[in-house]
Amino acid sequence: MSAPAARHRLHFPELDREIEVRGEETIFHSARRNGLRIVGACGGRGTCGTCVVRVVEGRIDHIHSAPPDLLETDDDAASADKVAPGRRKWLRACQLRVRSDCTIEVAPRSLASVVRTDADLGDASETLPLDPAVSSHDLLLPAATLSDNRSDADRVLQALGMPDLGIDLGAARGLSVALRDGGDAHWAVRVRRHGHELIDFAPLGSRSLGLAVDLGTTNVAAFLIDLESGVRLASLGIENPQTAWGADLISRINHAIGGPCAAADLREAAVAAINGLAHDLCLAVGSHAGCIVDAVVCGNTAMHHLLLGLPVRQLGRAPFVAALHAPTDAKARDLGLSFCPGARVHLAPNVGGFVGGDHVTALLATEEHWHQAGTSLVMDIGTNTEISLIHGGKISSASCPSGPALEGGHISCGMRAADGAVERVRVADGHLVIQTIGNRAPVGLCGSGVLDALAALRRLDIVNARGRIAAEHPDVEEADGLRAALLAPGVRITQHDVRAVQLAKAAIRTGVELLLRDHGIAEQQIDRFIIAGAFGAYIDIASGIDIGLFPNLPADRFVQVGNAAGLGTRRMLTSLKARARAAEIAGACRYVELSTRGEFQKTFMHHIGFPAELPRRSQ
Amino acid sequence: MSAPAARHRLHFPELDREIEVRGEETIFHSARRNGLRIVGACGGRGTCGTCVVRVVEGRIDHIHSAPPDLLETDDDAASADKVAPGRRKWLRACQLRVRSDCTIEVAPRSLASVVRTDADLGDASETLPLDPAVSSHDLLLPAATLSDNRSDADRVLQALGMPDLGIDLGAARGLSVALRDGGDAHWAVRVRRHGHELIDFAPLGSRSLGLAVDLGTTNVAAFLIDLESGVRLASLGIENPQTAWGADLISRINHAIGGPCAAADLREAAVAAINGLAHDLCLAVGSHAGCIVDAVVCGNTAMHHLLLGLPVRQLGRAPFVAALHAPTDAKARDLGLSFCPGARVHLAPNVGGFVGGDHVTALLATEEHWHQAGTSLVMDIGTNTEISLIHGGKISSASCPSGPALEGGHISCGMRAADGAVERVRVADGHLVIQTIGNRAPVGLCGSGVLDALAALRRLDIVNARGRIAAEHPDVEEADGLRAALLAPGVRITQHDVRAVQLAKAAIRTGVELLLRDHGIAEQQIDRFIIAGAFGAYIDIASGIDIGLFPNLPADRFVQVGNAAGLGTRRMLTSLKARARAAEIAGACRYVELSTRGEFQKTFMHHIGFPAELPRRSQ
Repeated sequence: MSAPAARHRLHFPELDREIEVRGEETIFHSARRNGLRIVGACGGRGTCGTCVVRVVEGRIDHIHSAPPDLLETDDDAASADKVAPGRRKWLRACQLRVRSDCTIEVAPRSLASVVRTDADLGDASETLPLDPAVSSHDLLLPAATLSDNRSDADRVLQALGMPDLGIDLGAARGLSVALRDGGDAHWAVRVRRHGHELIDFAPLGSRSLGLAVDLGTTNVAAFLIDLESGVRLASLGIENPQTAWGADLISRINHAIGGPCAAADLREAAVAAINGLAHDLCLAVGSHAGCIVDAVVCGNTAMHHLLLGLPVRQLGRAPFVAALHAPTDAKARDLGLSFCPGARVHLAPNVGGFVGGDHVTALLATEEHWHQAGTSLVMDIGTNTEISLIHGGKISSASCPSGPALEGGHISCGMRAADGAVERVRVADGHLVIQTIGNRAPVGLCGSGVLDALAALRRLDIVNARGRIAAEHPDVEEADGLRAALLAPGVRITQHDVRAVQLAKAAIRTGVELLLRDHGIAEQQIDRFIIAGAFGAYIDIASGIDIGLFPNLPADRFVQVGNAAGLGTRRMLTSLKARARAAEIAGACRYVELSTRGEFQKTFMHHIGFPAELPRRSQ
Repeated sequence: MSAPAARHRLHFPELDREIEVRGEETIFHSARRNGLRIVGACGGRGTCGTCVVRVVEGRIDHIHSAPPDLLETDDDAASADKVAPGRRKWLRACQLRVRSDCTIEVAPRSLASVVRTDADLGDASETLPLDPAVSSHDLLLPAATLSDNRSDADRVLQALGMPDLGIDLGAARGLSVALRDGGDAHWAVRVRRHGHELIDFAPLGSRSLGLAVDLGTTNVAAFLIDLESGVRLASLGIENPQTAWGADLISRINHAIGGPCAAADLREAAVAAINGLAHDLCLAVGSHAGCIVDAVVCGNTAMHHLLLGLPVRQLGRAPFVAALHAPTDAKARDLGLSFCPGARVHLAPNVGGFVGGDHVTALLATEEHWHQAGTSLVMDIGTNTEISLIHGGKISSASCPSGPALEGGHISCGMRAADGAVERVRVADGHLVIQTIGNRAPVGLCGSGVLDALAALRRLDIVNARGRIAAEHPDVEEADGLRAALLAPGVRITQHDVRAVQLAKAAIRTGVELLLRDHGIAEQQIDRFIIAGAFGAYIDIASGIDIGLFPNLPADRFVQVGNAAGLGTRRMLTSLKARARAAEIAGACRYVELSTRGEFQKTFMHHIGFPAELPRRSQ
């Protein structure tokens, strides 16, 4: 019997985290598995160079056997916020394996914050309506004596005037110590109640924090809310670490059905991401995750199932049946989430297929728009795009596998919305004019830039209606038989990129058309076209119309509401009424399965090209 | 960084168990920590020789460096049920450390079964009234299709006609697979419901088992019940593995307050004992612990707290306050118990001080006796002895730290009630006459034998009223200044043993007297003296009166009811009405703290001697 391999630990001082490395995984994969906020646009394949770290202390190997002296540190290191790829000390985390305990510094630009967490309805200073699931009660109690030796639980319950409440086991384990921490003569404690159960015993004055999580396929956004005031304290996002097992849902489901350990990979990645966000957010406001007394998570059905540890095999193949749709309260500890002892996590209800709680929360947050008379369409653009058509008081919902292209993912020069990302492209005097985030030199394209670029290339006829890049054009280059349109030095759109956008927009447009067809409605009858999603907040609607992503409706019918799922989730966090309303909305949605319909393919092919005639629009 | 020590595994083929060894612990301690049924009368100190095993395969060391060749096996080994201490291959498990993975055979007589699990009210063929907490429902469902793609949970809940039930997360994780195991066209599943929650999804026809556990300080008895018929299927008991950290409650509490790991030692020992009993009982009836859908555990307050992981520091010192008294349903998984996914464990309610759920269940089971008019006293004799006085419709309850002496524990020749144990001693023609279990050659004394022996030694004046063993008597020997009365070759009662019995009986008698005094009642006014407890079933009442353990009441006022706590626990397992009644009884009991009363010491000293005049009784 050989001794098991020693397990090394990675210490990240700036992030105040210490994690354990498994086997031969890279620093990048360790970090991701543990929900650490390291950027990794390519998912750790070594192609993007965004996961830059410095090994301050400890021994490592390069996976391609770089000489060890490459890896030594020196003291006159470059300023930490300038990543100089040629320098010795800054290295790609995805190329490094650990040979001892190490201390790691992450380059500031490789510290991920979500693609614009501010891109949501309401602003950072929003105050949410308060009707929370968890209430706090401050108690001052006489200490136990020989003549009053009631149990600690009875003493608390009687003081509350609620003798029949239950007490969560985890909370009960902390009760006796919490009571006696206050002193001998009198005891003081803050008691937290969720429904018919006490879930926490804490010192007087301790904070009641709530966490709202939008668990997206590509990004995880979390919002920390003060549950006593309804004030949003902080927000933060990271790339979903599950992307290591595939950018799209089907890849992840295929991984998960490989066995219990594979399913656990995905569950643990989601759990680590949420625990990491909770830790970082609480630290940022001078608190700790033990003060989180309630949480709400929304995600599509696959995200929901993977987080709860529900099987996903049946979700990935016809008839695409979920294990569970109903709104669910799980104990945080049963999910592996480290909040206060008896904290629960409320999972927003699902609708059907992949249409899950994130779409329900988006509908909840946009109800003021679609609840008016007439016909509305709510579209949450993401790696999976959910669409609801609201017509005649009925809601029909469908999901389209649009892929990450519209968010800049799996695009050769795609990047997240960070400094240097091309975010706007327009045509002036027959030439491309680009605008980058932070007005830096262009280094890649974010989602809105991809969309604009395509529209501009179409307008200049560099890309034709069938999506072909023109052969004979000064801005087109060709390498290895692959054509690419050059937008700026080093920033290009390849033929593959055009195809990816075509597939995405055709899938979405097909979803819209089939839903409309079910109700016998023409596109022009859509009174309100509500675009949700962090990405949707930044796109240029006209470009979307130009490339055929959206129907050609008057501009005033479009509403861009940003991350509505995030807002809806926050509302559910602070309000039981909002949870009840979300359940009603989910129950009212009729799920429409598109993928198995005979007309799907034909409609999809109809939309695969770009509009032959450019819409009326002044240049 | 050095590699952690390799962990070896022990395989026990006859017990169908495989366990992991921690550090340098002995085979005995590994087995005990994991709840394996190995006898160890001395708690693993190497003095009793009862924990005999054979190492069938693997390498071990003797803790006193015996030569390795002692440890090899050979094929013409002695018959396994004859332990021959001089033989090479049978060794004491408490003296062996493991040096590789090992396969271990336990000598049949070292396989513990509880001290007479049959010593309870009702017999092994009892059928309990059925009003269980868990109900089973068999469902035949149409399989999901594209036109009927409700979630699996909705499908089940709608078929049950109970759409608002919750589903335990552990159960939900198994739902989709359980449904699809049946076939493609139709799905079949047995659904189990506990209150407002579904807790398990199993194949049609799978059994619904319940486990009742009497978690005693010294012994743990478990009973497996068929929850569909109320029939008792099997029962089994083991010594409480917590005895490794002390025979009495105060020792264990002192260990537990040493820190989180120390508290976990005791919790894990109790959990392992119950898991081990559940495994063995289910195996014996051709099932597995995953079929246990409900459980009830009773124990004194300390056992209750240690199992739940509640702190015990405040329980061990004035004012002796429990964390929790109320009846409690915990999820089995939160306790570390491996039953069906959503199974709960119901903990019987406590009264106060150390008077816990085991006394409440004893009161529940004996209610037919004490619910009559007049004055009743219920006494559950154990390592802690609980006493309730029922008078004028009121119940007053107290606890006495009587120690294990009356059960044969911490007595020099004490042993469990097994073959060769002296169980009866009487005086005939001025001589001692002994009777052993199984009519074997005497090897030690079990509890009833200790009591009888003391009474006989008193009657022959070998022990005087102050408890001194006579110096000049042919049956008395003296070694190292310690006198001992010889009962049989090798079986003796030492002066220390006499003192231990004196302390035990004085503590119990003091409890009775103080309770009576509170109500201004004389001993002779007790109409019914109800003796519960496995040990109490076997003792000779007359001997108890002779040594002053019991007041001198007419024989027909005594009722010996055996393990009433076990019966009460079984009734609670099969009946919600019984659980409600137990809660009422616990609420009706007034706890009386004896240890802090000024008169305690004086009364105790008054009872420390034996009655000077032997009661009227023909020889």
